[in-house]
Order: sequence, then C-alpha cells, then structure tokens
Amino acid sequence: MIAVHLENGRVEIRKTALPRRAEGFARIRLLCGGICNTDLELQRGYYGFRGVPGHEFVGEVLEADTAGLAGRRVVGEINLACGKCAWCRRGLGRHCPTRSVLGIVRHPGAFSEVLTLPERNLHVVPASVPTEHAVFAEPLAAACEILDQVKIPRGGEAAVLGDGKLGLLIAQVLQAAGVCVHQYGRHKEKLAISGKAGVATEVAGNRLPAARYGWVVDATGSAEGLRQAVSMTRPRGTVILKSTVHGGVSVDTAAVIVPEITLIGSRCGRFAPALKLLKSGKIRLDDMISERLPLAEAPRAFARAAAPGVLKVLLS
Amino acid sequence: MIAVHLENGRVEIRKTALPRRAEGFARIRLLCGGICNTDLELQRGYYGFRGVPGHEFVGEVLEADTAGLAGRRVVGEINLACGKCAWCRRGLGRHCPTRSVLGIVRHPGAFSEVLTLPERNLHVVPASVPTEHAVFAEPLAAACEILDQVKIPRGGEAAVLGDGKLGLLIAQVLQAAGVCVHQYGRHKEKLAISGKAGVATEVAGNRLPAARYGWVVDATGSAEGLRQAVSMTRPRGTVILKSTVHGGVSVDTAAVIVPEITLIGSRCGRFAPALKLLKSGKIRLDDMISERLPLAEAPRAFARAAAPGVLKVLLS
Repeated sequence: MIAVHLENGRVEIRKTALPRRAEGFARIRLLCGGICNTDLELQRGYYGFRGVPGHEFVGEVLEADTAGLAGRRVVGEINLACGKCAWCRRGLGRHCPTRSVLGIVRHPGAFSEVLTLPERNLHVVPASVPTEHAVFAEPLAAACEILDQVKIPRGGEAAVLGDGKLGLLIAQVLQAAGVCVHQYGRHKEKLAISGKAGVATEVAGNRLPAARYGWVVDATGSAEGLRQAVSMTRPRGTVILKSTVHGGVSVDTAAVIVPEITLIGSRCGRFAPALKLLKSGKIRLDDMISERLPLAEAPRAFARAAAPGVLKVLLS
Repeated sequence: MIAVHLENGRVEIRKTALPRRAEGFARIRLLCGGICNTDLELQRGYYGFRGVPGHEFVGEVLEADTAGLAGRRVVGEINLACGKCAWCRRGLGRHCPTRSVLGIVRHPGAFSEVLTLPERNLHVVPASVPTEHAVFAEPLAAACEILDQVKIPRGGEAAVLGDGKLGLLIAQVLQAAGVCVHQYGRHKEKLAISGKAGVATEVAGNRLPAARYGWVVDATGSAEGLRQAVSMTRPRGTVILKSTVHGGVSVDTAAVIVPEITLIGSRCGRFAPALKLLKSGKIRLDDMISERLPLAEAPRAFARAAAPGVLKVLLS
C-alpha cells in the first residue's frame, strides 16, 4: 500500500507494508482525509515529527473484532488512550497521560491507504451524511468542545477571531447553538461562508471593539490574535484559546488580571455532538472544500493546503 | 495636614489642605496604613502615577452623612464606582468602567492624615479585631476573591507560588477554607508563617512537580512564575493569576491549549469574607508585620518595604 511520509519538511509517498491489527483495533481503508493546519505544522517539523500524518478521516472498516463493524463507514477519535487511568475512567481519554495520537504522537496517521485505530475510537457515520462532510467530524468536534467547556447562554454575544478553517467551523457551531456570533477575519470570501450560516461577519481593520464581548474565541493562530481577543473581552469575560502559536506569545498580565478575564485552552472534543451537527445539515461545509486530490498526490495537496486563500484540501 | 506624595520615583511628605467632603462621602482620620507592592510600583512610575498613594488603611470616621458613623473604626473598599451602571447594579462596582480607585486612579490615597471615601465603601471593623490586623482587610479580600471565582472543593490540592505578602495571605485563606495547600517560595523564614497556619511549605528549587495540581495560584510577580504555574497544573486544571508582571510575559500557548488549562485573572475582592476571617483569628498576621513607622516617615517606610526579606510595613 502507499502512505504519505513527512520528514525534514518534505512530503513523500512511500510504499509500505499493511499495518498489523492488534487486539481491539480495526483495520480501516481510507475513503477521505482532510489536511489540517496541524499537518502543515508537522511538515515544518514543529514537533520533531517524522512519519505518517493525518488525523481527519473517513474510512471503511476492513477487519475488526466486533461483529458487524466490517464494511461500515466510520470516523475516529484521534487520542489512543489507556482506558484504565483516572482520566480515562472519567471519560477524558483525550487527556490520558500515556495516550498516543493518530498521525501526531506515536501512532501512524490516516494519510495511508489502510490505517488502524482502536474500535472504541470509532463512530459509524450516519447514512445521510456524505463522506466529504463526515471528514469534518474531527475539527467540528474540536469546535464543539468550546460548548462543553464554557456555558454561553442562547442570545449571548460572542466574537470569533480568525476566518481560517477552524474559525469558520467554530463560528457556525456557536451560531447553531443559539449564540449571537460576530466573526472578525481578513478575507471577505472566507467570511462569506459563515455569513451564509447567519453569522455576523466583519473584515477586521485595526480598530476592533474594546471590552465588548462576554466570550471571545481566538482562532487566528497569531500572537497578535490573543492580545486582540483579551482587549475585546469585557470584564469577567472569557477568552477561548483555540489555535496554538509557535514560539512564546507575549501577554500583558495586567490586561487579564485587572478585568479578571478567564483564558481557557481548548483542544479536541467529543464526536457525538459533531455527528449530530453533521446530520442536522446546519454547518456549511461544501463551500469550505477548496480541492480534492488523490492520496498519491499528497505532496501537491500539502502545497495547495498551505497556499493563501485555500481552505480544506481533501485526499481520497 | 500632611500627606505622602509620589512623583518621579520620589516619596515626599507634603503639607496640604484638608480634603473637601462631597455628599455621600465620609471624612476619615488615618489610624493605620499598609504599604503594598502596588504602592512600590506606583513609586517606580509604572502607571505614570503622581499624587497621594495608599489603599490599605484603617481609619476613624470624622464626619459623614449617615448618623452614627462618626467615631467608628472603618476599613474601605478601594473602587469608587458610579453606582448606576450594569456592573454596579450586579454588585460588581469593582469593574465599573468609570470607577476611580483610592490611591491608584484619580482619587487621593489613604497615606494622608485625613482621607475621604464614599460611605457605601466603608465597613465597620469588629471590636475584637485589632487595628493592625484590620489593615490587612483589603489584601485579604483580594485573596478571598479566588474563592468567589473558583470552586475548590474541601480537601482539593492547590499550590501557591510565591511567598510574598499576598502569597502568604492566599495560602492561609485557602487553607482556612479547607483546601490542602502546598506553598512554594524562596524564603524559609517567610514560608514559616503560613507553615504555622498549617500550610505545607517548600523552598522551591528548580525542580517543581509537573502536572500535579488542580489549582495553582501564581503570586510570584515574576514572568517565570506564570510559566511554572502552567507546568504544575494538571490537565483541565486552573491557574489563578494574582500578581501582575510588568512588561509582557511570554506564554507557550500549546502548554495551555493541549492540557486545556484555564487561566483566571483575579484582583480585588469583597470585604465581608475578609472581615469574617479577621474575626476568626485564623490568619497569622502579626508575623507578617515587619515594621511600624509614623506617617511622617513614609520615605523611610517605602525604602524599608522595598528591601529584601521585608513583609508588611505599616504607617500610623
């Protein structure tokens, strides 16, 4: 079979043996993979990564322990947890200290003709959800995580900073939950996507409203984004940190302490709410797909995904 | 009368007119004032401050609108709020956007023979609480604010970083609330104070426990403190930012986002729980008083307060 391989900034296609299926694991044929900004960061070598990337996928189960799973179309949670520690027992395997992570930490990723994942990580995709929508389950779950962490009342005003892939999903997820969302970005054509979903959008200049929102999500991926998010948050409000910035980000502690602002780091989420949203059809995903390329053309796909103005690039 | 005056790094004693008493305000004779690190920062000109400092005080009411207030011994909340805005109506005048702040923002401070404050800011000191303890009401309220913002269960393990004045109060406040507190500092003799109150203390070397505590309070006032606090917090745990650091502090966003840590800025608090604690006698305050000097010797008192190893310096 073939698989994508990242090493020293290069994206290569390599021929490799079929992965061994351990007990409790399923062997899965890739139907569709989505390139995420994290994949581009792994390519740049940010975490010293070398291997098969890919953690957004839809696949068909080839082989599994559980009867009836073979042949089903699935998506998969990306954290491979021990299942036994205190975190796992609380249903928070996403924080299991000994976890590996699909395509990120010590488990080969999904950009491979065949991949493996523990059966307990898999969710069958509802028949009504097309594969090209289901591939958004993982980033959508990450967007839904915000609602698991922070109570935002219906009608509450929240701002989303950034109009990249994750920013667009977050804005739509919050809007679908009845939050009154204002999204600030730099690209009119990207903002138009969440605009169609009812989000109030604004091409952000240098003048952003000060101390206005009870909740501000920083999905800019930029050092400036966090500073702006803090200044747009009203006293006792909450900033949700959704995108990491490489290198340290400088924070003015007085700007956080004097208005008693809360900053919450937010990462992966549960798949159940994401699948429910996918079934609802409330999230505009077709507009977010910029390109579809075969797995064998992954080097070109990675280059496209990193190009300005490009949103989701799919591999199949 | 005389008052302390800060300007361009200098601490002076000036002769000045008695302050005018506006409607709703009380005129108060200073009995005791406490020098806080914020006062030392104002002296250094951090906020372009020029004027009379002082926001920790106990005084005797000389004159007031309310019958029976004159002659009472009082402490006072430091935020002078409008009393009408949405924040004030929610009982959060501490965040009133048009507030002035005693000895910090547009209202002359307490290091003056006579000061004024709105009557609604005043709290009568219980007869059983000595003046030298009551002067800790304001920083103690700031320590208590943590318990208003964050639910820490009885028996929950929390760390306090820093063994300065505020760190010692915070450790004791949390311990008195049934929290199992571990305080990390650099000075054995300072840590001994909270140690006597039952806090587990440790002179911190370079090896601090990683991902151990559900709650970590950063009261170090140092850029390094925030980084350490984050690394000592377990996934989904909370860091309480209690001391500002001048200049930006560099934060590794991945260290906050991956374990989904919450950072909460925490400032002034309600006086009621602080007065209750003072009455309880549970907080060891006598050991925290390093020096007592007359108001006229404020220049020397400020110098002493800034000296290494010195805790609270009182003016009277």
